[in-house]
Amino acid sequence: MQLLKDRILTDGQVETGGVLKVDGFLNHRIDVCLLEEIGKEFRRIFEGEGITKILTIEASGIAIAVETARFFRIPVVFAKKNQSINIAGDVFATKVESFTHGKTYDVVVSKKFLSPEDNILIIDDFLANGSALLGLVSLVRDSGASLAGAGIVIEKAFQSGGDIVRGLGVRVESLARILDMSGGEIVFAD
Amino acid sequence: MQLLKDRILTDGQVETGGVLKVDGFLNHRIDVCLLEEIGKEFRRIFEGEGITKILTIEASGIAIAVETARFFRIPVVFAKKNQSINIAGDVFATKVESFTHGKTYDVVVSKKFLSPEDNILIIDDFLANGSALLGLVSLVRDSGASLAGAGIVIEKAFQSGGDIVRGLGVRVESLARILDMSGGEIVFAD
Repeated sequence: MQLLKDRILTDGQVETGGVLKVDGFLNHRIDVCLLEEIGKEFRRIFEGEGITKILTIEASGIAIAVETARFFRIPVVFAKKNQSINIAGDVFATKVESFTHGKTYDVVVSKKFLSPEDNILIIDDFLANGSALLGLVSLVRDSGASLAGAGIVIEKAFQSGGDIVRGLGVRVESLARILDMSGGEIVFAD
Repeated sequence: MQLLKDRILTDGQVETGGVLKVDGFLNHRIDVCLLEEIGKEFRRIFEGEGITKILTIEASGIAIAVETARFFRIPVVFAKKNQSINIAGDVFATKVESFTHGKTYDVVVSKKFLSPEDNILIIDDFLANGSALLGLVSLVRDSGASLAGAGIVIEKAFQSGGDIVRGLGVRVESLARILDMSGGEIVFAD
């Protein structure tokens, strides 16, 4: 998606430790006009797949999932990182290691919101080591729902997550795939 | 907002301890069609105020803020509950006590995303004891930005948050104000 790649080149910042900061438009300050184009693009890629629900994980996946779901006219379910008293005990649960925060979270989805009748599209902002996406895939499989695929905004293709998840037979579509940014410059896959 | 009140009566669940569960349409599973109507209603209430940015707090405020910002064609900034390595050190910070989770969070916004030129609309899902909203108001005041007001989806008017924040001179507009639910039945303000 050229609009997104241009924006990453203009406003993204490569930091030490393999961190790409896109907090100016994607995951702290959100450009809703760009988000709308991202939602449209995911609709274009996955339309005709009979998707019934979008699954994402809090917090930065939510905005993208909602703007995508709007084009499909289907609900969003977001997995929660910490079980709260507002979630019933009846949950699908997994563990996700956060690269950004350096810790492991319990991730839960209420059982009543994923069912074998569902055909799920997973949406997230980043795919790097694949921990969050593997967690979401495992929640979908636990529920018995079908998995249509995963739509990722930015994939760090120099990390192993994409290969691992595709190796499980999951269709993963990324709007911007970064091959390399080790020299401080961002090189996209095409 | 009648559509919202009807939905709360149909799908909301009153639990012990003053908890209203709306996880079926607002803060776990999200009905994007309802969200769109909520966004439109906030636009109707606050249009003409010259709002430049919407501020919310992760996680359940994000979807509502994005769907509201879309109608204003302005960006969203969401305050983060835990400082991560992806946020620069240069932040406005405050503390927020979570009624739902029973703990206190550090809440931060990067200084580069709030400025004295901004006129901010705060958006959140719930207003109960007011802790989250007071935190967001304090972040706006620290930044020197103007505060146009706060748009709340559900206000528990039997708790003190609404009075406290309005007492600070902040315009607070809630789409559904609950006067009482102590008997298990929800009574709205009008």
